[in-house]
Amino acid sequence: MKTQVLLVECADQRGLVHAITGVLLKHGANVVGNQEFVDRGSCRFFMRTEFDAVVDSQNLELELRSSLPANANIRLSDLTPKRIVVMASKEHHCLADILVRNCFVELNARILAVISNHPTLEPLTTKFGIPFFCINHDGLSRVEHEAKLLNVIEGLSPDYMVLAKYMRVLSPSFVEKFPGRLINIHHSFLPAFAGAKPYQQAFERGVKVIGASAHFVTEQLDEGPIIVQQVIPVDHTHTAHDLSQSGRDVEQMVLAKALRLVLEDRVFLLGNRTVIFD
Amino acid sequence: MKTQVLLVECADQRGLVHAITGVLLKHGANVVGNQEFVDRGSCRFFMRTEFDAVVDSQNLELELRSSLPANANIRLSDLTPKRIVVMASKEHHCLADILVRNCFVELNARILAVISNHPTLEPLTTKFGIPFFCINHDGLSRVEHEAKLLNVIEGLSPDYMVLAKYMRVLSPSFVEKFPGRLINIHHSFLPAFAGAKPYQQAFERGVKVIGASAHFVTEQLDEGPIIVQQVIPVDHTHTAHDLSQSGRDVEQMVLAKALRLVLEDRVFLLGNRTVIFD
Amino acid sequence: MKTQVLLVECADQRGLVHAITGVLLKHGANVVGNQEFVDRGSCRFFMRTEFDAVVDSQNLELELRSSLPANANIRLSDLTPKRIVVMASKEHHCLADILVRNCFVELNARILAVISNHPTLEPLTTKFGIPFFCINHDGLSRVEHEAKLLNVIEGLSPDYMVLAKYMRVLSPSFVEKFPGRLINIHHSFLPAFAGAKPYQQAFERGVKVIGASAHFVTEQLDEGPIIVQQVIPVDHTHTAHDLSQSGRDVEQMVLAKALRLVLEDRVFLLGNRTVIFD
Amino acid sequence: MKTQVLLVECADQRGLVHAITGVLLKHGANVVGNQEFVDRGSCRFFMRTEFDAVVDSQNLELELRSSLPANANIRLSDLTPKRIVVMASKEHHCLADILVRNCFVELNARILAVISNHPTLEPLTTKFGIPFFCINHDGLSRVEHEAKLLNVIEGLSPDYMVLAKYMRVLSPSFVEKFPGRLINIHHSFLPAFAGAKPYQQAFERGVKVIGASAHFVTEQLDEGPIIVQQVIPVDHTHTAHDLSQSGRDVEQMVLAKALRLVLEDRVFLLGNRTVIFD
Repeated sequence: MKTQVLLVECADQRGLVHAITGVLLKHGANVVGNQEFVDRGSCRFFMRTEFDAVVDSQNLELELRSSLPANANIRLSDLTPKRIVVMASKEHHCLADILVRNCFVELNARILAVISNHPTLEPLTTKFGIPFFCINHDGLSRVEHEAKLLNVIEGLSPDYMVLAKYMRVLSPSFVEKFPGRLINIHHSFLPAFAGAKPYQQAFERGVKVIGASAHFVTEQLDEGPIIVQQVIPVDHTHTAHDLSQSGRDVEQMVLAKALRLVLEDRVFLLGNRTVIFD
Repeated sequence: MKTQVLLVECADQRGLVHAITGVLLKHGANVVGNQEFVDRGSCRFFMRTEFDAVVDSQNLELELRSSLPANANIRLSDLTPKRIVVMASKEHHCLADILVRNCFVELNARILAVISNHPTLEPLTTKFGIPFFCINHDGLSRVEHEAKLLNVIEGLSPDYMVLAKYMRVLSPSFVEKFPGRLINIHHSFLPAFAGAKPYQQAFERGVKVIGASAHFVTEQLDEGPIIVQQVIPVDHTHTAHDLSQSGRDVEQMVLAKALRLVLEDRVFLLGNRTVIFD
Repeated sequence: MKTQVLLVECADQRGLVHAITGVLLKHGANVVGNQEFVDRGSCRFFMRTEFDAVVDSQNLELELRSSLPANANIRLSDLTPKRIVVMASKEHHCLADILVRNCFVELNARILAVISNHPTLEPLTTKFGIPFFCINHDGLSRVEHEAKLLNVIEGLSPDYMVLAKYMRVLSPSFVEKFPGRLINIHHSFLPAFAGAKPYQQAFERGVKVIGASAHFVTEQLDEGPIIVQQVIPVDHTHTAHDLSQSGRDVEQMVLAKALRLVLEDRVFLLGNRTVIFD
Repeated sequence: MKTQVLLVECADQRGLVHAITGVLLKHGANVVGNQEFVDRGSCRFFMRTEFDAVVDSQNLELELRSSLPANANIRLSDLTPKRIVVMASKEHHCLADILVRNCFVELNARILAVISNHPTLEPLTTKFGIPFFCINHDGLSRVEHEAKLLNVIEGLSPDYMVLAKYMRVLSPSFVEKFPGRLINIHHSFLPAFAGAKPYQQAFERGVKVIGASAHFVTEQLDEGPIIVQQVIPVDHTHTAHDLSQSGRDVEQMVLAKALRLVLEDRVFLLGNRTVIFD
């Protein structure tokens, strides 16, 4: 018997927890962890339940659906490692961290490949036996370049795409192919310093903390739902370059934490926000 | 209809959430928040549920009891402000913070009185219109002094006693009168530097962070269940005196946070640990 | 012999530390702490020296000036408590914290008065024996209201003005009367959520940390040099109202820290940034 | 002209900064950063100066010595990468982090070799082209095992030895061969939970934060001077195993920070404490 996870999101109404736990009980599930949240603004109900059971997933889902309001979102996960593709440009720190965690089976994932617009990170990637695709954008239009990217990605059919310091803006038509499946690390505490050169912006503003934000990518650049944010203190002795160096550690930490949450099925979307059961 | 809180702690078994939410549903309760935790080591189940309803508490509790394992601990709270007594010695910072929060109705509590073994904090206390009892320990045995304290406390019948930098050790026979109701702020990150002069100890050890711990007081000095801990960074420029100054802010913050958790019925005891639903 | 502080800011050139310490040595000063910083972008030199000595300040300054580049800024401070005026509106937390610290002589300052555009905080202020001026803005133009404020302030001749949740925008002509002497606490991690209702903005953006910024006020609203910033983690369970409640503690902490730095002569201005020797 | 670092530690007396900067000035050094600290308890003076110059090191040191109190410790460093040997057992996270930083030239160091008492980490180490020595302790006395370790280490003549989760206690006679050159990461916030199984101890104590400490190793196990400490929050849902997993990230971060400080010549010893100029 292995641990399984049930995720439910639907319109709120009285008796939902009782109804859901009733169906689980009937199927012999032993609930070992349970978290609910009702967003009063949108009247949406969110629940994540971990249970031990050998269940007939199809039947369970059917019965749950008949006990829940129409259009309920129901996901059953047996926490099988997710299939991920990592995209990066020239900076190594986030990619290296993910490669090490993958190598020691610390992520609930399997890296299928690394895709980059530069050859810089090929030696690092291949040390860990992961396929590396260099798809240079020189001389290509955005449409042409993304067509080449998609060609590789579609062959791999990943569950999630991780932008680990991939420094090219992706077009809306690319992004909309991966709704809720495209995770980015942004090198600032969003919404401050969105856009280019956030560390230079932060230096000029004279901030006393810098941060990083892991978020889902949506068509609005740097505006997607935030998963994790953290900051570190800085002071007047830091140049813009120093800020970017110091920022690496917090970027790496934030992305690792966001990946853990997503890959363990702990994240719901709620409009442009996230509901996270950790 | 006001928000009420149900707290259940009992031996774990299959179907508890379903059973409890069934009773609540029958009583017309609309669950607005719910958290459970099963401690696998001890096989104990913990649940805190917030619900909106006009309920017949006595009946509800009776029915819950008949649905739950024997010896279940069930608490129903309508979040009425708790009655608290604060004990302090000479340092003002934690007391001042509690007095201000009380004055602006930010604590879910009402301060009945401040008791001290020194007159130092009387002017501060009376500014806020709170009765101040100075019970000096000079020339008294511990037993005699505590008898005088108890005399005042029993007249006030507080729900909780808060030791806001009360610097006298309380005897086991005093402590056992207030099981789970006596909250202390200890000026260190426990279990480091338990006992006297923690900041001097911390200085000599050359630590790079100092902290504070809010905990329930048990018969073992500084060994009771911890509610909240936080730390702040320090460096070689801090003398023992500086550490104690810097420590004030974290002590005050940690005690305030612990009081909020306890006074909003968010804390369970689990042996010498706490289960906290925040 | 009491500790004195020398602050020097000037164009950088070779030999400055040697020259300055030479003058101090000649005057019998025993340096007990010393910090320098050279901003390579602007080629400015900053130095803060604490020394023990009975010195002839006028002579010392004269000799320093003759050893330093033209237009050097030289400040000698004997750390006499600064004279401050606090302005607040309806929220009590920052004001209460400052009043308590003032009452227990923890700030290197003396509060001359509290000025508010509302009567709400009068009872709190007068508990601590501090004069309270209520200057209502109803029916007054900004110019007229500020004229009334200035009338009171000028009679008090404060060294610094502290905006402790003063919720009215001050005009450039008011601000320019107090260059480098007007300290504000902004209820967000600037530059994110500048302007009105930052907690509502933060809620809508779904951020995972909120913060506060203490900064000098300049003519550009919320754009002045930042002194201190700190953040606290938040999550999806926080409503905009919860965020504003949680934000209080970080606001209070950040303002207290900024005041300590400014009142102990530890802050230099460097364009729109600050250089802080802590 | 490259940046050099001067480190001075001596008995405190009037005029030291002036004297030292005088010698530097005479040698044409342009001071670009300078930090001093006087420990009032021990009356010791500490100074770290960064300067740009082509200097005759031998002459400079000679002149400094003649200007300073007897027995002054003077170090001149041109920040050449240090030679380090890493020792580890079975856990990979700290070692992997150091290997990645070494690979991308982020440490001011060159890893000469990794030594382990287990073969577990050989594949990771050799991915990065670093020699791996497995020196098993089975069937060997501590003296015999350490003789084998020393045999390898002495052949490498490292500046520093880094214990990156090396889980064997080293004997005093081993330790005393590397005074101030042996850096350990301890998986707890020292002095709490010194000794074995700190995460199990932390779990049983029910702490709300866990931490890690990087420190110099001395003959007293876990009692040496602390370089860096940091903590992360935990709660009742963490088992001892979870604590140890969560602890990995903070261990890795703390060790990386300590290495940066030591390898950039920023750390002084002061009895059992450290003075750090960052």
